[in-house]
Amino acid sequence: MKKNSSNTMALTPTTSNKRETVCIFGTGDFGRALGHKLIQSGYPVVYGSRSTQISNLIPKDAEVLSHAEAAQKAAIIIIAIQRQHYNFLMPLAEVLHGKVLVDISNNLKLNQYPESNAEYLAQLLPGSKVVKAFNTVSAWALQSGTLDASRQVFVCGDDVQAKQMVMDIVRALGLTPLDKGSLLAAQEIENYPLQLFPMWRFPFFLSLGLTAFFFFYCLALDVIYTYIYENNNFSFFIAITIPNRVCPVMALILLALVYLPGIFAAIIQLYRGTKYRRFPNWLDKWMLCRKQLGLIALAFASLHAVFTLVFPLRAFVRWRISKGIISQALNNKTEPLDTTNAWISDSYLALGVLGYFLFVLLGITSLPSVSNNVNWREFRFVQSKLGYLSLIFCTAHTLVYGGKQFLSPSAYKWYLPNIYILSLIVPCAVLVVKFVLVFPCIDKPLTQIRQGWERNPKYSE
Amino acid sequence: MKKNSSNTMALTPTTSNKRETVCIFGTGDFGRALGHKLIQSGYPVVYGSRSTQISNLIPKDAEVLSHAEAAQKAAIIIIAIQRQHYNFLMPLAEVLHGKVLVDISNNLKLNQYPESNAEYLAQLLPGSKVVKAFNTVSAWALQSGTLDASRQVFVCGDDVQAKQMVMDIVRALGLTPLDKGSLLAAQEIENYPLQLFPMWRFPFFLSLGLTAFFFFYCLALDVIYTYIYENNNFSFFIAITIPNRVCPVMALILLALVYLPGIFAAIIQLYRGTKYRRFPNWLDKWMLCRKQLGLIALAFASLHAVFTLVFPLRAFVRWRISKGIISQALNNKTEPLDTTNAWISDSYLALGVLGYFLFVLLGITSLPSVSNNVNWREFRFVQSKLGYLSLIFCTAHTLVYGGKQFLSPSAYKWYLPNIYILSLIVPCAVLVVKFVLVFPCIDKPLTQIRQGWERNPKYSE
Amino acid sequence: MKKNSSNTMALTPTTSNKRETVCIFGTGDFGRALGHKLIQSGYPVVYGSRSTQISNLIPKDAEVLSHAEAAQKAAIIIIAIQRQHYNFLMPLAEVLHGKVLVDISNNLKLNQYPESNAEYLAQLLPGSKVVKAFNTVSAWALQSGTLDASRQVFVCGDDVQAKQMVMDIVRALGLTPLDKGSLLAAQEIENYPLQLFPMWRFPFFLSLGLTAFFFFYCLALDVIYTYIYENNNFSFFIAITIPNRVCPVMALILLALVYLPGIFAAIIQLYRGTKYRRFPNWLDKWMLCRKQLGLIALAFASLHAVFTLVFPLRAFVRWRISKGIISQALNNKTEPLDTTNAWISDSYLALGVLGYFLFVLLGITSLPSVSNNVNWREFRFVQSKLGYLSLIFCTAHTLVYGGKQFLSPSAYKWYLPNIYILSLIVPCAVLVVKFVLVFPCIDKPLTQIRQGWERNPKYSE
Repeated sequence: MKKNSSNTMALTPTTSNKRETVCIFGTGDFGRALGHKLIQSGYPVVYGSRSTQISNLIPKDAEVLSHAEAAQKAAIIIIAIQRQHYNFLMPLAEVLHGKVLVDISNNLKLNQYPESNAEYLAQLLPGSKVVKAFNTVSAWALQSGTLDASRQVFVCGDDVQAKQMVMDIVRALGLTPLDKGSLLAAQEIENYPLQLFPMWRFPFFLSLGLTAFFFFYCLALDVIYTYIYENNNFSFFIAITIPNRVCPVMALILLALVYLPGIFAAIIQLYRGTKYRRFPNWLDKWMLCRKQLGLIALAFASLHAVFTLVFPLRAFVRWRISKGIISQALNNKTEPLDTTNAWISDSYLALGVLGYFLFVLLGITSLPSVSNNVNWREFRFVQSKLGYLSLIFCTAHTLVYGGKQFLSPSAYKWYLPNIYILSLIVPCAVLVVKFVLVFPCIDKPLTQIRQGWERNPKYSE
Repeated sequence: MKKNSSNTMALTPTTSNKRETVCIFGTGDFGRALGHKLIQSGYPVVYGSRSTQISNLIPKDAEVLSHAEAAQKAAIIIIAIQRQHYNFLMPLAEVLHGKVLVDISNNLKLNQYPESNAEYLAQLLPGSKVVKAFNTVSAWALQSGTLDASRQVFVCGDDVQAKQMVMDIVRALGLTPLDKGSLLAAQEIENYPLQLFPMWRFPFFLSLGLTAFFFFYCLALDVIYTYIYENNNFSFFIAITIPNRVCPVMALILLALVYLPGIFAAIIQLYRGTKYRRFPNWLDKWMLCRKQLGLIALAFASLHAVFTLVFPLRAFVRWRISKGIISQALNNKTEPLDTTNAWISDSYLALGVLGYFLFVLLGITSLPSVSNNVNWREFRFVQSKLGYLSLIFCTAHTLVYGGKQFLSPSAYKWYLPNIYILSLIVPCAVLVVKFVLVFPCIDKPLTQIRQGWERNPKYSE
Repeated sequence: MKKNSSNTMALTPTTSNKRETVCIFGTGDFGRALGHKLIQSGYPVVYGSRSTQISNLIPKDAEVLSHAEAAQKAAIIIIAIQRQHYNFLMPLAEVLHGKVLVDISNNLKLNQYPESNAEYLAQLLPGSKVVKAFNTVSAWALQSGTLDASRQVFVCGDDVQAKQMVMDIVRALGLTPLDKGSLLAAQEIENYPLQLFPMWRFPFFLSLGLTAFFFFYCLALDVIYTYIYENNNFSFFIAITIPNRVCPVMALILLALVYLPGIFAAIIQLYRGTKYRRFPNWLDKWMLCRKQLGLIALAFASLHAVFTLVFPLRAFVRWRISKGIISQALNNKTEPLDTTNAWISDSYLALGVLGYFLFVLLGITSLPSVSNNVNWREFRFVQSKLGYLSLIFCTAHTLVYGGKQFLSPSAYKWYLPNIYILSLIVPCAVLVVKFVLVFPCIDKPLTQIRQGWERNPKYSE
């Protein structure tokens, strides 16, 4: 990548470099990094700066001139200065008239100013064509060349040709431009790098709340109850036993919550007899965060799997097992194999393993690069068919876990059910309703509605 | 993203929107979703509709006109109506002459009609330039903006300029156009969204068949034989024990089948003395589904790993262990540590862990986004060198598992070998032949052949 | 994809194929594969060959002419012949004058020739416009259509328009062109397909060296010491016990080495009072291979997890457990539950599980397709916040593992500490310094420096 001046002699003169000059206002971090990259890609670069004293940080092959001189040399000017200094550009309005100004600025907070920086710039210099771009790319990424984070550059602007010119530069730098429309989108684009997983917020807080609830529920039943009534100090259950009760419960409930909005949508469409009316807002939002809910469920399921596999290594479990064996040995007897018990234990484990296996498959297909390589029918097949199969396996796993003790009164401490019973409510409801919905007499009208048929066409207008 | 009309006043008049108008015939789901997206990206949109009554579902900024009026306003007309209504377009032939018609239709079944919808449209309106596009994108994906499934838009058409215009629109919507050539490719493109994992079909049915065979083989030997001759009811083996015998066997055989076609290809090339002749058809097909075979093998290996780790949690295993301990305790003796046994047990486990570890590495590098970031030499290194190393470890794991009991007659119930012995045939054959092929005296001519050298040049013409 | 001639009759005459003809010199593997692909994408293809006898391997729709005749028919000529035959092109200099020559050649070794093949070609034919492209794509990938490896085509050249023409062809073939600048970049592009994980080299050898050291350290303490002083043959520890000591130690040290350069960078910036001076070279290099270090650490952590979970299956572990139980049974006593022990055991396992869980999350977000979908703030949040949390959990896991025996003299065989004590040095140092750095009185100036503030502005010029 480095230009070795010794062997360039023969070649550089023949270079018919027809790329248009790019001007950069501002010699800060990003201005310099972008200049470097532009020069590498064959663009002549000229910097506009207050002091034309050449810093050793500015790329060697770039010119440094005053703002006005630099602006005259190029059709595209990249404004690499901060919003609060934009009014310095006012005196240059004449030079900048008709030029393409690329606003690359970012704010420190979401919605810091009433209008976006790019719109503010466009208002200051109404004669110039303002394009928003590059604000999501970091100087570090440009410099190091290792674009680990996104290669996407969101571009917006009111002038289509100006936008096209900027998008050509973006492509020449090896990045992917994404046209977001008119300059009105600048607000959204400027907010983008300040966002912290906006789609994950609701699923995250929902699972945090539910986890806290179930954790204290278990704490009461397993530690406090035992301490009060049986005088056993099982406080160490906090480390593994209780998390391993909460995790599967959360995984099952969240997985069911992924499929619940689809059930609601089907019922609403059947009731209305049309698909041409918007779903209630809450349902729309819920449907858009199903992927996030599913991935959090997968995280809980994974934790449950590892916590379970770790059981035989626990001092407590080893102590309990050896206690059982010693008491048998001291009583001079060996219990025969209880085949029913073996069946329950094995099928419970096998159902869990298969359910988790399908769940991981679902997770893998939701990786962007994998889902990019399947068509819609395949994506729906995996997410719907395999998803329901996984839900069935996981629900069965929990039901078999309950096994014989489901209705035994000893399972109800303080008249409260064990949490695995609570966790079964939503998934069982989803599976029962889904089972009803796949009956031909209900599935047929639903399919018709989804293909555009309407019971009462007046609804739609 | 939403246009807030209150603060647009200052800006919209200055917008020099040079994007050409797009016309959409049909106001169904997809037509509306596409219109919304086009307007967002700065295209003026005009709908052609039978009734010009404006539905509240149509994007606000779009015009709705009669078909003929709408078509006159645009150079590109997106035909968002179903194939069976295409003949309604016949009277408009004159207006549509020379225009670009974008066929976005899909069928309900593979090869439903003798010719593709796009070719049918081109035959109906020979004066128009038909381009096939957008049929793989779903209305839901366009609306929600969350393009979880593919961003790829396959485009084909006979007129290169018309295709270019459509591809520019595709890019402006933030999607990736993929030129598939002339309109003859429309059949393939129309079949694409109806396909369900075509590359996976053969590997899937192959593994299903083999799995069924090995399952019943194990059932006979482990459950039925034990029931008849030893009068033990081990029916619960169906849940975990037998799956955990079938899974490793399947994983090993399928992994070997990934490398077998490469062996065949090398032998064929050595025999023919040239690489310029096509392989037999079955070998070509086999080579193209190696990735799928490998991933199914990885799935079986993962199931085997989890089933094995779950062993200490099984009621049966706990019963068997405690029975052993109690009988020792009752006999008042402690067995000394059998070092050989410890060696076999530990190396068997270690080989399995390492083999599985390399196998997972192979799986990760076959993720599209990872393999996109490696060059061919690196890809081949991982898939070939690491792959063979994984095969060697897994085969050794199985051999050590057999351990001392390999030739003991008690291992042969009904004179049938245990299935792990069956599973060793293909991998051992592959490894032995590969071992021969890497000898310099054979590797050298093979490398020459692969670099283009021919023993009998007459073959190639 | 295959052209079925039976139903093309009606359509082919209407094809207004305006794509420019492409000429290919050379009918070798790559020339043929590229020709096939070009014809599929609608380009007329003409081959230049010494013998115009038509081989059955050359695509049917292509013409085969002499070199001079073929070159006259096209503006773009793809040179699919090897560098050593380039001088054959000298007599054609006149015909090739002004044409775009695409050099697609590769060498067999890194830096085989003083100048790159493309530069050599440009020197031979100074009147032609040489563009380097396609050398990273394999003939097999083009033929099979399954572009498992990279879709990226690196392009470089001195003539911007010529480069643009080639990049249009690349896009038409469904590949992604990446402009690497002038022809000087050809050397780098030609070396690219010959590289074998250059970024992984240092992390790989570092971990290999450390692993070897820790392995022999453990071998001495656990096997040789025991053999000499306790006369026990624990040689089978080589298979699982020792790897399971080395893996966690390596994982922890490498994870700490991921965060150490950031600490150094912060201290250097604080000391210098500016960010506008380059870091020392070793620090720059170290920072660029942090991702690789982290992924190798994750691999070690995964091996540690699996080796640990496999413990209850080991013959040695089963023997030790049953020995303990039998001795208790023979002594007629049952030990009560040691709550402290249960706490240590459970929290040690729980910390490990959580640390590993976060570590896997880090690994998933470093997948190219996932990191492409997050913005910089999210990426930094995951890689920095979650990363440190994972480091804290893993360090705590190791500290609790030490537990009560930390300072017991019996833990020091040959006066050497157990390796888990060695492994704690780097992570503890990193965490302590980081803890100091997040204090407001230090964090505030550091943040200012990183936003561009300078203590002694003279430094920067």
